Amino acid sequence: SGLVLVKNPHLDLMEEDILYHLDLGTKTHNLPAMFGDIKFVCVGGSPNRMRAFAQFMHRELGLAGDGEDVADICAGSDRYAMYRAGPVLSISHGMGIPSISIMLHELIKLLHHAKCRDVTIIRIGTSGGLGIKAGSVVITDTAVDSSFQPRFEQVVLDDVVVRSTELDKDLAEELLACSREIPDFPTLIGHTMCTYDFYEGQGRLDGALCSFSSEKKLEYLRRAYDAGVRNIEMESTAFAALCGLCGLKGESSCFHLL
Amino acid sequence: SGLVLVKNPHLDLMEEDILYHLDLGTKTHNLPAMFGDIKFVCVGGSPNRMRAFAQFMHRELGLAGDGEDVADICAGSDRYAMYRAGPVLSISHGMGIPSISIMLHELIKLLHHAKCRDVTIIRIGTSGGLGIKAGSVVITDTAVDSSFQPRFEQVVLDDVVVRSTELDKDLAEELLACSREIPDFPTLIGHTMCTYDFYEGQGRLDGALCSFSSEKKLEYLRRAYDAGVRNIEMESTAFAALCGLCGLKGESSCFHLL
Repeated sequence: SGLVLVKNPHLDLMEEDILYHLDLGTKTHNLPAMFGDIKFVCVGGSPNRMRAFAQFMHRELGLAGDGEDVADICAGSDRYAMYRAGPVLSISHGMGIPSISIMLHELIKLLHHAKCRDVTIIRIGTSGGLGIKAGSVVITDTAVDSSFQPRFEQVVLDDVVVRSTELDKDLAEELLACSREIPDFPTLIGHTMCTYDFYEGQGRLDGALCSFSSEKKLEYLRRAYDAGVRNIEMESTAFAALCGLCGLKGESSCFHLL
Repeated sequence: SGLVLVKNPHLDLMEEDILYHLDLGTKTHNLPAMFGDIKFVCVGGSPNRMRAFAQFMHRELGLAGDGEDVADICAGSDRYAMYRAGPVLSISHGMGIPSISIMLHELIKLLHHAKCRDVTIIRIGTSGGLGIKAGSVVITDTAVDSSFQPRFEQVVLDDVVVRSTELDKDLAEELLACSREIPDFPTLIGHTMCTYDFYEGQGRLDGALCSFSSEKKLEYLRRAYDAGVRNIEMESTAFAALCGLCGLKGESSCFHLL
């Protein structure tokens, strides 16, 4: 049916669903009227960038006005920022798996309550590249964890549940084809490694703590490269797992910062 | 000596240290002049709340002006917000362990470069309470993980390193004594459980996914209570581990939201 799935039998029994961190709710807002026509959701870490992206989409779609004064739909909360341009929603998710997970739970419920159909969700973030040209965009085929495994370990109460992190292969190919139409836009498809830590977890030598040598770091990154990893960030496994379970066609494509 | 410790031999060899997510650096800013007299750092998730806290401290300390126009020291970055009021720094850290870890790595380096001495750091966040009155403040003696163990498992490259999560007991008692001087301010000392997930990880029945029954949830929370847990949040184990390793006298005290 193309509807967004929630997998929670308790939700139907609730009189009201409050999306705390988005400052929205089923009793306070008419979610189908506000969001029923959404077809694309783009998410990224930084609120300013997601605002700029909404303004860019506003111009690209030729919508009325210059789009400069696009309003933050979640202005009542400073946890996330949300903007819309036509059928495109642009939302920030902060940094790391816990932060993006809270946002995705509430976004998925939002799209469900709004009865949206055939929604495509794309993470457009920044990442560190591995053996690729600076400025390249990596389109993720599979998100892997710090042991290069295509899995997301979710703690449910105190049990560990292992979830798949495959992303939509057709969508990845479609995005790659689009990139080919733009000159000087180096793009590739590869695995994306998702870590819980930016400094010690990604082999950086400039954190407050660092117990490994430059050689040990390079040896680890070489193993990651050999396993197919082309970039490293901090949200893709949770993103892939949640989108996959809830019937959202999802992709992650990250710009490689130098 | 009371100095803040960095445990990274590579740092001394670097010509410049850029604190990316704070938009500060050793070449672009005179960190000792800007921060050398800092004695207290208060951290919390929300940027707006940390701004309001700096304004509150400004008034409490009787500093010149009304403090309403307190400037965001990290205005060039939208990852975190930082304000100061006299010797007190007030910084937001976003939600979850990965987000607070990035901030703490850069904050610890900042305090190190600024040659600060005898710094006390306190997390003043919100949390869910367990068997306590709504509106209570829980001062953490020990942060525990989702299995109620006093440990933080840090992935370093692809090794797992286990770190201690003890907080400063004297500081906890001192904070408790202060709270006793304020009427109608229910405060207690207890364990704080830190999870990677807000919905499935904390037994919430209103996420997009929920595979457990109300009974299973209550059974888990009862076990947590029996293990000494009095509140649940998403940053305390990483906070305790990093502060402990770097010689920062640290405490976490969270307000229990209903």
